[in-house]
Amino acid sequence: MRTTVGWRADGPVTTLRRASFERRDLRPDDIAVRVDYCGVCHTDLQAVRAHRETGVSVVPGHEFTGVVTGTGSAVTRFAAGDPVAVGNIVDACGACAMCRAGQENFCHEFPTLTYGGADRHDGSTTLGAYSREYVVRDRFAYRLPAGLDPAAAAPLLCAGITVWEPLSTLGVGPGSRVAVAGLGGLGHLAVKLAVALGADTTVISRSAGKAGDARRLGAHDVVVSTDPDRMAAARDRFDVVIDTIPAPHDLGPYLRLVAMDGTLGLVGHLGQVTLQAMDLLVGRKKLSSAGSGGRPATAALLDFCAEHGVAADIELLPSARVNEALDRLERNDVRYRFVLDLSDLS
Amino acid sequence: MRTTVGWRADGPVTTLRRASFERRDLRPDDIAVRVDYCGVCHTDLQAVRAHRETGVSVVPGHEFTGVVTGTGSAVTRFAAGDPVAVGNIVDACGACAMCRAGQENFCHEFPTLTYGGADRHDGSTTLGAYSREYVVRDRFAYRLPAGLDPAAAAPLLCAGITVWEPLSTLGVGPGSRVAVAGLGGLGHLAVKLAVALGADTTVISRSAGKAGDARRLGAHDVVVSTDPDRMAAARDRFDVVIDTIPAPHDLGPYLRLVAMDGTLGLVGHLGQVTLQAMDLLVGRKKLSSAGSGGRPATAALLDFCAEHGVAADIELLPSARVNEALDRLERNDVRYRFVLDLSDLS
Repeated sequence: MRTTVGWRADGPVTTLRRASFERRDLRPDDIAVRVDYCGVCHTDLQAVRAHRETGVSVVPGHEFTGVVTGTGSAVTRFAAGDPVAVGNIVDACGACAMCRAGQENFCHEFPTLTYGGADRHDGSTTLGAYSREYVVRDRFAYRLPAGLDPAAAAPLLCAGITVWEPLSTLGVGPGSRVAVAGLGGLGHLAVKLAVALGADTTVISRSAGKAGDARRLGAHDVVVSTDPDRMAAARDRFDVVIDTIPAPHDLGPYLRLVAMDGTLGLVGHLGQVTLQAMDLLVGRKKLSSAGSGGRPATAALLDFCAEHGVAADIELLPSARVNEALDRLERNDVRYRFVLDLSDLS
Repeated sequence: MRTTVGWRADGPVTTLRRASFERRDLRPDDIAVRVDYCGVCHTDLQAVRAHRETGVSVVPGHEFTGVVTGTGSAVTRFAAGDPVAVGNIVDACGACAMCRAGQENFCHEFPTLTYGGADRHDGSTTLGAYSREYVVRDRFAYRLPAGLDPAAAAPLLCAGITVWEPLSTLGVGPGSRVAVAGLGGLGHLAVKLAVALGADTTVISRSAGKAGDARRLGAHDVVVSTDPDRMAAARDRFDVVIDTIPAPHDLGPYLRLVAMDGTLGLVGHLGQVTLQAMDLLVGRKKLSSAGSGGRPATAALLDFCAEHGVAADIELLPSARVNEALDRLERNDVRYRFVLDLSDLS
């Protein structure tokens, strides 16, 4: 086994503490990655706060970039020194219809998550990338294209692919009218990607204070959701509304913004959803949801971002300040994604 | 004013009683229709049972066929003696984007309903077609194509168009895999229309006893929803699932039947809906809803039905037995739509 060091939640506390733990020896199709940068996702926050109920210790982190430091005997795609990126899926069955279609995120046998998942070979619980080294099956690592800043690119691997999925599968392109509800980690990337795809892009935000930021990110318009006149004027206006709001909320006001035959894509709050069927019926609207993506889409996203200069707006912190990052994320005090610099663990 | 006779709920009872009431004199764009056949819709049942709370008397009936008996001075599309059909919308603003797109059912100023609506000229409450005469703006009457039985065609105007909307707008055709959940008034028409469109069509029913009927209607397969093995085997199998179940229910089991990128269309229960976002997310599925349709779609449906010999399976009753029909509908004791014969009112 290999030893690494990282940030782990265990025992009675709901904060992360520095800890040493083991990584597996490389299997023939594994690579070892020196983790340089890892984004801080809402899922990480939830996992850290919740680990006491499960009794299972957790090392979060599932959107990261780094450099290959070792390769298994059968690996041909990577060599030591290659810059790579890894997201929230590190394995899948490879045999089911979803895997064969390149949608490993929908693997019928459930994909192996980057942390808190069950390794498909030995059943051990996966430990995430708030750590200096990660060992991953080579198929689930992506070459980081030249020109992408590795720190700002890290959030593309979870926040980015989550909003890329609906934008790309719903056919957003030049002339599309897109609204992004909520301007956080997911929302700000949805805005940048929609703009880069050529869409007429509007931000829907509770806070008028985010209007300047929204325009700086490229948004063409901003609608403050607490202004009933503006919301009424925006009725039926958008082919696609990407709802990144991370808490339970009434979908009615957002469904009413969707144009005839358009779609509301839920990507923020993925729990129970309540809506009125009439809000779908009138205008023949659709509700969808997305989280993560398959290997081909993830690779396509990275290429698109390199070509269009899209990456996250990040606040880079030494990994030792991870608890501060989680506290601030809990208060929505981040513009727009924390990224941990893991070099302080060396 | 013109006097007609029909079946009305008013006062303290929740049954219908024979009553005389007035129809307006013909406006220039009105036609008078002798109502021959009117289908009995779940909405009628709800309206009759609920009228005591609203204090407004109700004459139900919004899917009917009959013969033109008079025309306003500006009417050119119809002449006395023409067979016609009318659905649940009898007027709309005509000016909004939805009306201009031929989706009068989504009129921004709300369409005028065939009963319980507010007339756009005089504000009076519309009274439905459980009556011998109806007066309707000519634009909202449809020529009944030759070859369609006028009694069995009546339910096409509400039940039929409601299921036709998702089938046609979701592109169902040869090779599509369609499931219809619930085999009642809407469901049995969804099966017939899906089969006529060339789809591989499956009925999902709680009751194994409906399997024979389902196959007689043209279904290629039947899945009993209380059989977990069959439901599991049908996972991810259908491009379109039309959910006609008329009561609140968990959408999870039906969403899991939807194939990757497919759609669950809700047409039965149109109230509050609760679901788990993950049931949409996994497989990138969509939820939509439908009820009624616009003028072009309604006309297209009637032409399609005439061409393919599709109409409702009905139980035809003299209109004097309307309360019996409502009671039996309430117990789901109908295969598959009651139609009232209004000739007993002459």
